[in-house]
Amino acid sequence: MSSPYFTLTEPHRFHYYDPKRVVLGKTMEQQLRFAVCYWHSFVWQGTDPFGGDTFQRPWHAAGGDAMEQAHHKADVAFELFRLVGAPYFTFHDRDVAPEGASLRESNLNVRRIGEVFARKMSDSGVKLLWGTANLFSNRRFMSGAATNPDPEVFAYAAAQVKNVLELTHELKGENYVLWGGREGYETLLNTNVGKELDQMGRFLNLVVEHKHKIGFKGALLIEPKPAEPTKHQYDYDVATVYGFLKRYGLEKEVQVNIEQNHALLAGHTFEHEIDMAHALGIFGSIDMNRGDEMLGWDTDQFPNNLQQIALALYHIIRGGGFKSGGLNFDAKLRRQSIDPDDLVIAHAEAMDLCARALLIAEKMLTDDQLGQHLQVRYAGWDGELGRDILGGKLSLAQLAEHVDAKGLDPQPRSGQQERLEALVTRYL
Amino acid sequence: MSSPYFTLTEPHRFHYYDPKRVVLGKTMEQQLRFAVCYWHSFVWQGTDPFGGDTFQRPWHAAGGDAMEQAHHKADVAFELFRLVGAPYFTFHDRDVAPEGASLRESNLNVRRIGEVFARKMSDSGVKLLWGTANLFSNRRFMSGAATNPDPEVFAYAAAQVKNVLELTHELKGENYVLWGGREGYETLLNTNVGKELDQMGRFLNLVVEHKHKIGFKGALLIEPKPAEPTKHQYDYDVATVYGFLKRYGLEKEVQVNIEQNHALLAGHTFEHEIDMAHALGIFGSIDMNRGDEMLGWDTDQFPNNLQQIALALYHIIRGGGFKSGGLNFDAKLRRQSIDPDDLVIAHAEAMDLCARALLIAEKMLTDDQLGQHLQVRYAGWDGELGRDILGGKLSLAQLAEHVDAKGLDPQPRSGQQERLEALVTRYL
Amino acid sequence: MSSPYFTLTEPHRFHYYDPKRVVLGKTMEQQLRFAVCYWHSFVWQGTDPFGGDTFQRPWHAAGGDAMEQAHHKADVAFELFRLVGAPYFTFHDRDVAPEGASLRESNLNVRRIGEVFARKMSDSGVKLLWGTANLFSNRRFMSGAATNPDPEVFAYAAAQVKNVLELTHELKGENYVLWGGREGYETLLNTNVGKELDQMGRFLNLVVEHKHKIGFKGALLIEPKPAEPTKHQYDYDVATVYGFLKRYGLEKEVQVNIEQNHALLAGHTFEHEIDMAHALGIFGSIDMNRGDEMLGWDTDQFPNNLQQIALALYHIIRGGGFKSGGLNFDAKLRRQSIDPDDLVIAHAEAMDLCARALLIAEKMLTDDQLGQHLQVRYAGWDGELGRDILGGKLSLAQLAEHVDAKGLDPQPRSGQQERLEALVTRYL
Amino acid sequence: MSSPYFTLTEPHRFHYYDPKRVVLGKTMEQQLRFAVCYWHSFVWQGTDPFGGDTFQRPWHAAGGDAMEQAHHKADVAFELFRLVGAPYFTFHDRDVAPEGASLRESNLNVRRIGEVFARKMSDSGVKLLWGTANLFSNRRFMSGAATNPDPEVFAYAAAQVKNVLELTHELKGENYVLWGGREGYETLLNTNVGKELDQMGRFLNLVVEHKHKIGFKGALLIEPKPAEPTKHQYDYDVATVYGFLKRYGLEKEVQVNIEQNHALLAGHTFEHEIDMAHALGIFGSIDMNRGDEMLGWDTDQFPNNLQQIALALYHIIRGGGFKSGGLNFDAKLRRQSIDPDDLVIAHAEAMDLCARALLIAEKMLTDDQLGQHLQVRYAGWDGELGRDILGGKLSLAQLAEHVDAKGLDPQPRSGQQERLEALVTRYL
Repeated sequence: MSSPYFTLTEPHRFHYYDPKRVVLGKTMEQQLRFAVCYWHSFVWQGTDPFGGDTFQRPWHAAGGDAMEQAHHKADVAFELFRLVGAPYFTFHDRDVAPEGASLRESNLNVRRIGEVFARKMSDSGVKLLWGTANLFSNRRFMSGAATNPDPEVFAYAAAQVKNVLELTHELKGENYVLWGGREGYETLLNTNVGKELDQMGRFLNLVVEHKHKIGFKGALLIEPKPAEPTKHQYDYDVATVYGFLKRYGLEKEVQVNIEQNHALLAGHTFEHEIDMAHALGIFGSIDMNRGDEMLGWDTDQFPNNLQQIALALYHIIRGGGFKSGGLNFDAKLRRQSIDPDDLVIAHAEAMDLCARALLIAEKMLTDDQLGQHLQVRYAGWDGELGRDILGGKLSLAQLAEHVDAKGLDPQPRSGQQERLEALVTRYL
Repeated sequence: MSSPYFTLTEPHRFHYYDPKRVVLGKTMEQQLRFAVCYWHSFVWQGTDPFGGDTFQRPWHAAGGDAMEQAHHKADVAFELFRLVGAPYFTFHDRDVAPEGASLRESNLNVRRIGEVFARKMSDSGVKLLWGTANLFSNRRFMSGAATNPDPEVFAYAAAQVKNVLELTHELKGENYVLWGGREGYETLLNTNVGKELDQMGRFLNLVVEHKHKIGFKGALLIEPKPAEPTKHQYDYDVATVYGFLKRYGLEKEVQVNIEQNHALLAGHTFEHEIDMAHALGIFGSIDMNRGDEMLGWDTDQFPNNLQQIALALYHIIRGGGFKSGGLNFDAKLRRQSIDPDDLVIAHAEAMDLCARALLIAEKMLTDDQLGQHLQVRYAGWDGELGRDILGGKLSLAQLAEHVDAKGLDPQPRSGQQERLEALVTRYL
Repeated sequence: MSSPYFTLTEPHRFHYYDPKRVVLGKTMEQQLRFAVCYWHSFVWQGTDPFGGDTFQRPWHAAGGDAMEQAHHKADVAFELFRLVGAPYFTFHDRDVAPEGASLRESNLNVRRIGEVFARKMSDSGVKLLWGTANLFSNRRFMSGAATNPDPEVFAYAAAQVKNVLELTHELKGENYVLWGGREGYETLLNTNVGKELDQMGRFLNLVVEHKHKIGFKGALLIEPKPAEPTKHQYDYDVATVYGFLKRYGLEKEVQVNIEQNHALLAGHTFEHEIDMAHALGIFGSIDMNRGDEMLGWDTDQFPNNLQQIALALYHIIRGGGFKSGGLNFDAKLRRQSIDPDDLVIAHAEAMDLCARALLIAEKMLTDDQLGQHLQVRYAGWDGELGRDILGGKLSLAQLAEHVDAKGLDPQPRSGQQERLEALVTRYL
Repeated sequence: MSSPYFTLTEPHRFHYYDPKRVVLGKTMEQQLRFAVCYWHSFVWQGTDPFGGDTFQRPWHAAGGDAMEQAHHKADVAFELFRLVGAPYFTFHDRDVAPEGASLRESNLNVRRIGEVFARKMSDSGVKLLWGTANLFSNRRFMSGAATNPDPEVFAYAAAQVKNVLELTHELKGENYVLWGGREGYETLLNTNVGKELDQMGRFLNLVVEHKHKIGFKGALLIEPKPAEPTKHQYDYDVATVYGFLKRYGLEKEVQVNIEQNHALLAGHTFEHEIDMAHALGIFGSIDMNRGDEMLGWDTDQFPNNLQQIALALYHIIRGGGFKSGGLNFDAKLRRQSIDPDDLVIAHAEAMDLCARALLIAEKMLTDDQLGQHLQVRYAGWDGELGRDILGGKLSLAQLAEHVDAKGLDPQPRSGQQERLEALVTRYL
């Protein structure tokens, strides 16, 4: 049950990531706010729909005592955090402790490991970026948690969220995340969409109320995803979540945690989702991974696309950067990467690549040619006509009269996409 | 310039479609409200991105007088409406009349053909389901209409909409549609998403105000589409449009016109979009066509999937059926279907198939096994716990207390998807 | 350990499926050759990448004796075959018996259950459509079986195939299937594609040689799939498999087992793959299920699309129908369909729907308007020019001379797609 | 009719591209063999399926003399070649000269411009990478060229190919390309796949025979694409083309021209197609562009993904580099990039980015850590067991005996994907 589990015992040496280096007015650590996730790194066994455990982590060995294994897992987790120098971590309740015979027992198990966390966090300085409740793995949630046809499941889910939200608060977690993995449907034939949306709206309001009641100051975050495991997930993408929040009066209370791979599955680029969240005022945090554009499921790979990461960070920082949010590696090893050290290397290399991307984003923002291009392109809207239109001073009829009177025949101007794209590659 | 253009001169004889047959309390004609669209049938020449005109319609012959050709086109259009017995048609301004040297002249050309329409409509009894302005084909709109970086283009678009909205009103059109084919972006590098959304929100408010000013009683409809021609279109899907409407205070003023092929491109089934629109209270009208699930663009094929159409009509009627909306065939011939009669046959067969699907939907609704299944499945929400949750009587803490006190351990019940799917096939 | 496991104890009563009814010269049973697969129905526990066991089959209960559970599973399997009247079944070695401490023991376990099968088959009249070896679930195959970088894994796989091929032969199985679930790659960075193709070619040749050596008269079948679990699978689709067979001299020895859902993932319709296999002379058998066109993974749903099944059967029978092949339901319940009876109903309804589709295919083939249309369309190739071209009598220069001399300017004729599609719907 | 058409009159200054710099034993010019394509740059007018001409090139002005316009176009083309320093160009017959009243006249038009090309090529030193015939735009080819149901269309296509193949030969073109844009189908309902494949096989054999007859030493290249404009194109991807070539005995006569965007549409990475072509011995040339992974059509964008280009060049050079083939920019401006100079900048920046990618590929190949990793990973196949298996010395039974006798239980080794991916990013 003791570490070191890894053969690499010294913290990783980075080429680009220097936590204390100042970039755009903050240290790299403050800008990037890296988090390691518990589930992919310590819970998942390398299974896929066609194959079993490849990793054979000792804490998953058959016949082990579940709580002892949970302690072992926690030891290894904090060892990894140390080796890669991760300032934050993230977890679901079910990642950290075994399910008990009743919810009370399950919740207690989580709290007991929570005490272990508190001690280890204090010793190591590692912080909690966010906690969340797993409302999707157990068969009781197979037809949804908040959106279940059975209100008892709603109640059960509520009780589970209460426990994790409070633990997150106690651990000084900086956010609380809700991913509605089963909040959707497999077939419309057995689904009442309107009713389920109302249930989900009620649930989220309950969480908001409880957050305020206990004085949790962190952000509540919804994580959009279009599908998988469900055929359709209600929190499809950022724009859909926005509409949902507006519908239930929550657009000022809840933000989004955007994942690259989820964006992709919804047909969007990562930057699109980030930019849209900023435009709608609900940007919160990100899950940094990558999907495979040729595959139709959530591959949750470690990021390896420098240009994409740089553009994502450019959009994040241009929009104001992370507040309570951060950059969580919701990424898992390929199941053939079975050496424990693969886990260290994957995280450390991903952190280094993100740091390198941050330096590129810094150049893009400092140089600001992209920003200036935008300003010039939309300059007309700062003129009289533009201001009058947006200011509501002109009716449709007045605009038509204006066009006619002036004989307007506006000429298009080049969008210069190739120049701008070349500009971006030059920052690499 | 004279018809008949088709060798088929007698109206088509249907196997299922009988306009006067009563189905679910209305005649088939009232339930289905078929419309033929102008653009695919009379404007498109059979081109695709790799090939030219295959149809060689006489009214597109090089060197012709544009207004004479517009008259010829109108003759053929109304001849087609007669042959297939279509009660409605739909058009863009640029479909019906040539662009002139100025917007004033263009608008006048549209109005002159509008007079022809008025006469032909009166003679034939054919009605206008909706009109719309083409704000995407001309190069002036290449970077958007309402969302253009140049406010003069916004003004130009406004003037064009005013003209078509008023013509639609005069022709007693029952709806007015806005499809934002260029309201999106090609690259985020040259795009200010937040500003463009505000522009689009302002534009739509102007249209709403003008509608009320002129007393147009028809519905305003937005047609969602995720992409194509743009990389990203702001009106991505029904849920996104809903969020947009909420943002700009228009959710009670504007509804959606849902197209099967657009739903598909956004990763949704047709039924999903219909059901979601009903759940959100913005269902308006549909474009009936089909896409090819193996292809990534808008194929706009004539519908040939009986089961899919039946499910769509089931969801439409279950939600209340069409009010001002209808079923517009936004479908085009395959470009190899070059015989004029192909146009008649394609429409007539599509109408007949939809009528057959309506009879299936009737069975589904009358038998109501699907409806009863839903009621049973969600019955728990009619109980005390369910009512208290949705009624806001229980806090998160109270729910947790309830779970604990009762030792709740809710057991899942079968979703019975295979039974329900088999039930649906049995209605065919 | 005793059945009945199902509450339905009487064989299902069908509306369309009548095993003895003669359709197109054979009984329905002979035309359709239904098989139930072992893996989805009796092995899979309702897990998905985000959730655990929902089915809770007693033979998977923790702590059970593995061979006893295998016997229980076999009892339930043959009970299901009886209830739905399935004439065939299919299995992998690992579906039917537990893995032992060595391959020898694993193979023996399989053989012991094979003896149970022999007895039950004799008693019930149920036959084996095909057997196959699971070369993808165990971690030893994580980097491929035949295509593994380690030749010992190749040898291990060979030994496993030998055992199942011989058992299949002994059980009078009518085919033997190879699905290369791990014969592909996750990243080109660690993969030598050319070497792996050669390994796979050698492997298949070994199987062919062994088949002849032991006198197995059934067909060897490769099952194409483009991806999942791998990023890329070498047996991508029918055309790719054909090229592979040609490369390794096997195109007369091996055929394909085509799955609807795999076709879809490769960007093809089911009919396309069937038709292509016929054109290339390698059609063997099918896996009947359906995928979800909106989702990017193998959903393996029970078929519910009457038109699609009818077209598939039309193409199969037009190409000569099944010889040794058959129609295997490689379909699994949705994981929310947790009642044991859902398994009976799903299979029985699927069989009935396929029977109904067969009756439609019968109409299409008997009426033969589609066939006649094809004949007329290609009639030119029966003329002198067509025969001379295909007969190799004309060179490029002679053809050019012919065009010039005759002043050829061939005119296109309508492809009539809408008419043909309407014709198909009318057969429904 | 005179140039300069561009405001940029001086050749572009590159940051990375230095034609004479030696990289991996050849000059950059020899390694990269850049070509500018005629069609996107000088023929396409900026249209898309929803919009018209945005570019307004003077040589497309209505009412112009077609041959005069063709001369003007040629002037501008060679001006662009000069400005960007492109060593090669590529064209279809219909790109360079207008269609005449008969094929004879059309062919003559092409030849007359061919004479202009010969002169300009001699003056400028620009060479022809490949020529090709447009067998897809005219309505006569709407149902295919070689695969047309009408053999007269086959003959017509043959005559057209003969003309362009001979012109290509005369202009010392280094390859001849066949892209079967209409060699596929829209619906199986009107298609005889087997017959069409035979027609296509015959056609290609005719071209091969003619090539040898006239002494053309360049390579014949097929360009795979899965779909668009057709629903299905027979030359789906590299593996499919290989099977086709094997079927018609042409695998030693014909190679492939691989396009990034076409690879993507077929569900493959660019590297996959390159690597597969090398493995199958049919690699010829590439079309360098990029697609948009979020969109389902051929966007043909200028490349801007440094990592992807570097990996493509790594795979090309590792496989032996270009022989007669080269790197053709089959890329078009975005339709909003309406300034003539956008054309210069897009090409020059793309060339520079490819040169930069070449330097990265050089590092990858020189350092060779990836190559060494592969060697180690597959080392087992150089041992006795591996050699005996591939050498055909062991039967299935002998392998099974070997496993049993040795008690083989091969243990998996880490695939190290994350390490390798990080290695690649470090070369950037």
